Amino acid sequence: MTQDSPFSYRPIGIIRSPYSRRIDAPHQSTVVEGTETGNFAEATLDLHEWVEEKALQDLAGFDRIWLIFAFHLSQGWKSSVKPPRGGPKRGVLATRSPHRPNSLGLSAVELVTIEGRRLHLRGLDLLDGTPVLDIKPYVPYADAFPHAKAGWVDELDAKLGRGFAPGARKFR
Amino acid sequence: MTQDSPFSYRPIGIIRSPYSRRIDAPHQSTVVEGTETGNFAEATLDLHEWVEEKALQDLAGFDRIWLIFAFHLSQGWKSSVKPPRGGPKRGVLATRSPHRPNSLGLSAVELVTIEGRRLHLRGLDLLDGTPVLDIKPYVPYADAFPHAKAGWVDELDAKLGRGFAPGARKFR
Repeated sequence: MTQDSPFSYRPIGIIRSPYSRRIDAPHQSTVVEGTETGNFAEATLDLHEWVEEKALQDLAGFDRIWLIFAFHLSQGWKSSVKPPRGGPKRGVLATRSPHRPNSLGLSAVELVTIEGRRLHLRGLDLLDGTPVLDIKPYVPYADAFPHAKAGWVDELDAKLGRGFAPGARKFR
Repeated sequence: MTQDSPFSYRPIGIIRSPYSRRIDAPHQSTVVEGTETGNFAEATLDLHEWVEEKALQDLAGFDRIWLIFAFHLSQGWKSSVKPPRGGPKRGVLATRSPHRPNSLGLSAVELVTIEGRRLHLRGLDLLDGTPVLDIKPYVPYADAFPHAKAGWVDELDAKLGRGFAPGARKFR
């Protein structure tokens, strides 16, 4: 086995969401908080049979969960990408683009409720049919760094207003 | 292809850290902030040749980056696990245990500097030789939810003191 031998992961669940095409989905999950009608974008995650329901125990007390998922429609990647919010090309690993060396996605989504093997979620930017590879509890002391500087994203925010994105819904 | 056909990912880099055994590594990355001597645990991430150095461009402006990595020493998993901080068994997906259905890890680490294909990192809980599958910029508006409730972790914090963990280093 060499240092870059591949690792293989089997989806533990699948997303059911209102977004069937990439163009319909907002660019970051938190952008979806409220729609123009004041409704929340809701979605579900159904756990596959090979994972016991017991694995979800104790998850209900968390406001948010991490989803690590496959950008299953992504085809190929380049070292530099043009972010949807504008500006010059950026190194792909300095962006959240789906078209990356390993097309893995990461979102901190709101956990609304759990019914058996089904998780009800909110604040999601995932396409219908997205394969989920892992669920982790969101733990603020390990995950929340509200004052972390964010390089070119901060620069764009200063210029265009925080959260500005083409086609985006209403923000908090 | 069925809904749970596996996805394969090739490591983009490898961690060099002072922790060669699991027992030496703290349980969450932020626990490592300062050691008893006041030094910081430092580590490096070397990008593999198949990923162009250009992919790292624009990353230097970020205080923190996400690493998605393989818990490469993890063997097997169970639906319930006993957290190192104590208390009853918990559903594995409600924990950050390495022994999970897909042994993927997630850490928000401090980016100190980038020299060519080498990233200097701080605040790391990763074992030497850990294969890294993805690097993403830490963007507070999408990632930071300091007030998110954290179920059983909050309960333990209230009982034992925040961040208490056996064998842990000094906390912030």
